Formats: sequence, C-alpha cells, structure tokens
Amino acid sequence: MPQLSQKGLMMPQSPIRKLVPYAEAAEARGITIHQLNIGQPDIKTPQTALDAVKKADIEVLSYSHSAGFLSYREKLAAYYGKQGIAIEPSDIIISTGGSEALMFAMGSVTDPGDEIIIPEPFYANYNGFATASGVTVKPVISSFESGFALPPISEFEKQITSKTKAIIICNPGNPTGYLYSKEELDQLSELVKKHDLFLIADEVYREFAYDGLQHNSVLNQREIDEHTIMIDSVSKRFSMCGARIGCIVSRNKELMATAMKFAQARLSPPTLAQIASEAALDTPQSYFDEVISEYVDRRDTLVAGLEAIPGVRVAKPKGAFYCIAELPVKNSDDFAQWLLESFEHNKKTIMVAPAAGFYSTPGEGLNQVRIAYVLKKEDLIEAVALLKGALSLYKD
Amino acid sequence: MPQLSQKGLMMPQSPIRKLVPYAEAAEARGITIHQLNIGQPDIKTPQTALDAVKKADIEVLSYSHSAGFLSYREKLAAYYGKQGIAIEPSDIIISTGGSEALMFAMGSVTDPGDEIIIPEPFYANYNGFATASGVTVKPVISSFESGFALPPISEFEKQITSKTKAIIICNPGNPTGYLYSKEELDQLSELVKKHDLFLIADEVYREFAYDGLQHNSVLNQREIDEHTIMIDSVSKRFSMCGARIGCIVSRNKELMATAMKFAQARLSPPTLAQIASEAALDTPQSYFDEVISEYVDRRDTLVAGLEAIPGVRVAKPKGAFYCIAELPVKNSDDFAQWLLESFEHNKKTIMVAPAAGFYSTPGEGLNQVRIAYVLKKEDLIEAVALLKGALSLYKD
Ligand SMILES: Cc1ncc(COP(=O)(O)O)c(C=O)c1O
Ligand SMILES: Cc1ncc(COP(=O)(O)O)c(C=O)c1O
Repeated sequence: MPQLSQKGLMMPQSPIRKLVPYAEAAEARGITIHQLNIGQPDIKTPQTALDAVKKADIEVLSYSHSAGFLSYREKLAAYYGKQGIAIEPSDIIISTGGSEALMFAMGSVTDPGDEIIIPEPFYANYNGFATASGVTVKPVISSFESGFALPPISEFEKQITSKTKAIIICNPGNPTGYLYSKEELDQLSELVKKHDLFLIADEVYREFAYDGLQHNSVLNQREIDEHTIMIDSVSKRFSMCGARIGCIVSRNKELMATAMKFAQARLSPPTLAQIASEAALDTPQSYFDEVISEYVDRRDTLVAGLEAIPGVRVAKPKGAFYCIAELPVKNSDDFAQWLLESFEHNKKTIMVAPAAGFYSTPGEGLNQVRIAYVLKKEDLIEAVALLKGALSLYKD
Repeated sequence: MPQLSQKGLMMPQSPIRKLVPYAEAAEARGITIHQLNIGQPDIKTPQTALDAVKKADIEVLSYSHSAGFLSYREKLAAYYGKQGIAIEPSDIIISTGGSEALMFAMGSVTDPGDEIIIPEPFYANYNGFATASGVTVKPVISSFESGFALPPISEFEKQITSKTKAIIICNPGNPTGYLYSKEELDQLSELVKKHDLFLIADEVYREFAYDGLQHNSVLNQREIDEHTIMIDSVSKRFSMCGARIGCIVSRNKELMATAMKFAQARLSPPTLAQIASEAALDTPQSYFDEVISEYVDRRDTLVAGLEAIPGVRVAKPKGAFYCIAELPVKNSDDFAQWLLESFEHNKKTIMVAPAAGFYSTPGEGLNQVRIAYVLKKEDLIEAVALLKGALSLYKD
C-alpha cells in the first residue's frame, strides 16, 4: 500500500471522537444521552433565512463569485457598520463556514515549519488546520482561576521566534466562554505591532456576549489594521451551522488578495446557503434578544447547578455557549467514557467533552470538561442532576 | 506590515484572471461577450433537486455528519453500483465540491516537498491545490497530435523520484476532452503498483462520454484498490455547480480514515446542497440523454466550425465539454486580450481561455486556447464566426 502523508497521520482527532462508539453503544442499550459535548444549538433557524431559499427562483444553480455574492458582502458590510465596525465589501471574502476562513487565513500567513501562538484551552480544530498546513501551535496557558483571561503578554513573548507568524484568539472563547476586554485587545495590539505578527481573531460567537458586556472586535483596533484578520460565521449566530457560510475580513489589501487566490482555487462558497445567509441579515433584533436571554437563562441554570455539586468548580462564561468545569476526578477522559459505558439513571446519562483535547500542552486540563449549554433548561437541570449522581458513584 | 506566506505569494492565478478587467471594460463599452472560457454550463438544474430543497422541512439547519448524510452516501453507492462500480457507503466522504475532495486527497497523501505527476495540459486548480499543500507538480506532456492521449509510461517513469506520491489524471479531461481507454488505465495501474503510488482520478465529467464510448472508472481497476482515489462532483453532472457538493471515493480504508480527519476538522459539507444532491440522484435518465445529445450537438457544431477556419486545428473531444484548439497566433494570451480590448463585430466579441495556463511547462500551449462548449448552438455558431473574423484581422 502506498504511504499516507505524515501530516495526515498526525492530524488530531476531535476530543470527543473516542467517545462516539461508547455513545452509540449506550444508545443501542436504550439509554438517552444529554449531549453537553457539542456546539450544535437547538435554537430555530430564522424563518426569513429558510424562506429565502424556498422562494429563490433558480434555473441553473451556478457558481457564485469566488468572494461570494456582492449583494451579500454589501449587506454584511452594513451589518458590521451597525455594530460600529467600518468595513467595505471588498474587505470581505465569503467562505464555506468559519472553518474555511480559518484555513484561508493560515494559508495566507504561514508556510510549513512556521509557528502560531494560541492561548489554551482553544477550539480543537485550530490544531487540525495547523497540522494540515504543517504549522506548529505554540500554546500559552490561560488559567482556570482567572476565568481564562488573556495570559500575561510576557508569556506570549517567551514563545515568539523568527518563525512566529500569527497569534490566534477566539473571542468570545470556545471552550472558555471568556470575553476579552478592550485592555486585553490593546495589549495584544501592541504585541503584534512590536513583533510584526498577524492577529487572527475568531469572532464566530461575537453576538453571544452576556451581562451587558460589550463585545470588542479586533477590527476596531484601528492601529493594527494591517495585522488583523477577523473570522466570522453564520453557524452559531443564526443557528444555521449546516449552511456552511462564514467569512474572512481584513483591511489588509495584500492579505485579502492572497486569501482570494485560495478562494479562487476552490471556485465558490455554496450558493443556496449564501441566499439563506443574506436573508438571515434581515432577522429582527427580537430574535437575538430572545436567543441571548435564553442562553443567559441556560448559563445561569447550568452554572448554579454545577456549583452546587461538591467538588465542582466553574469558570463562569461571559459569552459563547460553553463553559469549562473542574470535576473531582483525576482524568475526565476516563470519566466521560464511564458516563457512557457504566452509568445510567432512569435510562439516561450525559456526554461531556474532556477538556484535555482543548489543550495542546500534554497533561493540562485533565480534571476539566467542556459543557455546552445548547440544551433546553429542563434538560440542563436533568443533566446536572445526572452529573451529580454520577460523581457520587464514580471511583477514579 | 507582517509577512505573507511564500505559498500564498506563489499561489497561481486562474488562467483567465488577467482577462477579467478587459472583459469588464468591454462590457462597460456595451459589448456582448460570448463566454467560451468557463465551465459553467447553461443547462437547467434538475427540478427534482431544486424542489427537494423547497420542500425540505427544516427547523434547525444543523451540521451533518462530517462524511455527509448516510442516506446520501447510500444512494450514491447505489448510483455507482448501477454503473458497474461496487462501492460501499463507507468508501465515500461527501465534500464541498470536487475541489475539497481534491484537497482531502492531496492532504492525505502528500507532505510539503513531495511531488505529484500530472499529464499536462491539466485543470489549472491542481496547481493551486498543490501550491497550497507545498507540493511540486511534475508535468508529463500529452500531445495535441494524439488528441491528448496518455503520454508514454516511460515519460512518467522519468519523473518518478523518492518524493513522488501520486499521479493525478482527469478523465474525461478538462481542458482536453480526452477519454482514457481501458488499456491506458491498465498501463497506469501497472505503473502505480510498481512504484507504490496513489492514482487520483478526477472523474467529475464521468457522465460526459460521447460517440458511444464507455467511461472507464479507475475504481474498476480492482488490482489497485489500495492505490485508487476517485474524485467526483455534482457540479457538472446535474448542472449544479453552486451546490458545492462532491465526494472522495476509495476502497483504501486507511486513506479514508485519514481523509476523514480532514473532513472532521472542517465539520461538515453544506446541508441544503446535500438535500439537493441526494434528490438529484432521482433525476430520470431522459434528462441525461437530452443533456448528452445537446453537448454532442454543440461539440460537433463547434468542432466543424473551428476546423473550417484557416489555420485552426482542434483536438476533437470525446468527453467533458471543453476542447483545445490551435490558433494561427504566436501567443494566445495576447490574442485573448486583443479579442476583448480591440475587437468587436456588431458589438459582440468572444472570451477564450489561453491554454498556457493549463500547462506547467513554461512555453507550452502558447498557440492554443481552451474553448468550453457550454453555450447554446446558435451562440456557438456566432462565436465561431466572430473568431474567424477576429483571426482574419489579428496581427501578432
Ligand atoms: C471557535 C470556533 N471557530 C470556528 C468554528 C467553525 O464553525 P463553522 O465552520 O461552522 O463556521 C467553530 C465551530 O464550532 C468554533 O467553535
Ligand atoms: C477537472 C475538474 N475537476 C474539479 C473541478 C471542481 O469542481 P467542483 O469543485 O465544482 O466540484 C472542476 C471544475 O471545473 C474541474 O473542471
């Protein structure tokens, strides 16, 4: 058999991949699983978006412009404008999900052997995209105690070498739920200016900021316009993960011209989903208000429930819809498997994402799990009760 | 400004990219352009496919399985079965266009610095995907005289080094329209077995075989099951380029497990488009019969018209919907630009793709153009007349 690539062999698996067979086996035994492990919201997609696709009068479902429909980019620019971010349609390339936008960004700024610095814990697929690009991730640890605030800039500087090309942040954070302050962004701005690096900000959860906190976009750090690359997506904002529409936004013209070559090679982003995404921008504010208050309610329910379990600690999230919890277990990988394999109460159990998969430093996060609050409140309450019962039975 | 990647700078532009500003300027002068330069068919998308999307009852537009809907993979396997190709659903990963399938294949079998051999002229974006992966394309020239038949195997062997990982063929060929014979595939099979290489066959035009000729899929070279990777797409088959659905097919389980890691990192292929693509498989045979006879009619019209122009030669295509024509010009790049910049007849002109962009050997194909016969017959007749008039006026 011919040889597979080294990078293919090294491509990391998703943190929950190992658990899938156990989940399937549990389901086969008739057990209902509350899935706290994935970021697939149960919120309804705005009807406006779905209707636009139904109403579209298409004879030939053709390629769109490689940068996406101009009409969509214009409406997106207006949307950012309303949020106080001055963006031209030409600063935007529509991508196939935020995922592809991340790949365009990595491809445009890194060569094999280069390095990218990312505060950990981080979205596990950053590792996948880096590996696919032959790029090394240099993690900088953020602490549970600080709620996963930005690590000290000196820690970033320790990791910077001649091969460092960019820093990636996720704001609000998956898996942390942390929302960076203006001061933290200012510190990062100074850093990337000083070392002439790109700052890639994954803002796919930008709308999910709670407690009256304001989301600070990296695009408003105007002193580093040439350094900033913003990654966005309709997946979570409009609960349309299956659309596969995102975008890469930057005011750096050369960067965008380079990203455009990657976009042209793959021809175009999906046409039907662009129709839906363009229409989704007409979603009334009341939709978001309801969604946000729903998530706040879920978060509060979840956090209160978790904190009431002996030995459990939570880093209270200020945004997105995930939190990291510390459990009184030695190895959350084993515990997560045990939950599926050996635990059940009234034929029910829960599935959580072991947090070690979100760290790239070996041995970090072993007693942590990521919990996504994408379930209805009643289900979250039941899930927390199941967790409590499970922990009282579990022996390391 | 921070530095962009070397690979980003080296990413090739599409062969027609340079012409776009001239086309836009011509349109601004009120000139109608017959676009013979792109592979966007004007054929209607099957109503079955479009209706399925309209009828879909979606509340939450969610991620699908990273390998695509199981129901779709099952129907696809049945579709291949009907064509005499024994394929299991687990041998298929649904991708975002054939484009993404090509990237999964390259990522799974090559590391930066590796080499891939491709008979030229070839689909220009192979170069883009190779550059994005840090992989070097080693071309093996196929001759206009032979109608772009498979070059002698000895020419492939001359290019094989320890870094060679795969051979890519396109069957039927874009831009050549060539359809590989069973004998040619047998020769390739022996070659990849002897040197333990992957054979990646881009069969996105598999349905477009003319003159009663049979398309030979690489998947039926059963002696090289572990070596073959087939790339497919709904783009051309169902005239639904904008869906962005394709697939990678292989019986090599380890290869598929590796490709799956790339698929998981980007989460899932587009959901709406999968609904359309799954339904498209119910398209009645009469649709294809009509489409094929339409293309044969167009091809015959085009080839006859071109051959009647003094100094023009055509390699008659047996499949796909492109042909390479030799023109009595020194540099078809200049000629293509001149057609847009300085020529018009009754406010009309044509746009062709200079063929040099489909060769990776510098200096090859300078007097050739690729012509796509994706226009209605009347338009093709007019386009040929315009070309004839233009050539009679053009001075190198
Ligand atoms: C932080 C983060 N970035 C990017 C993505 C990619 O999402 P998509 O490709 O659906 O836009 C996700 C999805 O979960 C995410 O959590
Ligand atoms: C030979 C060949 N392969 C692959 C593709 C990619 O097509 P898609 O990504 O739309 O499936 C094309 C598109 O023109 C092509 O001509």
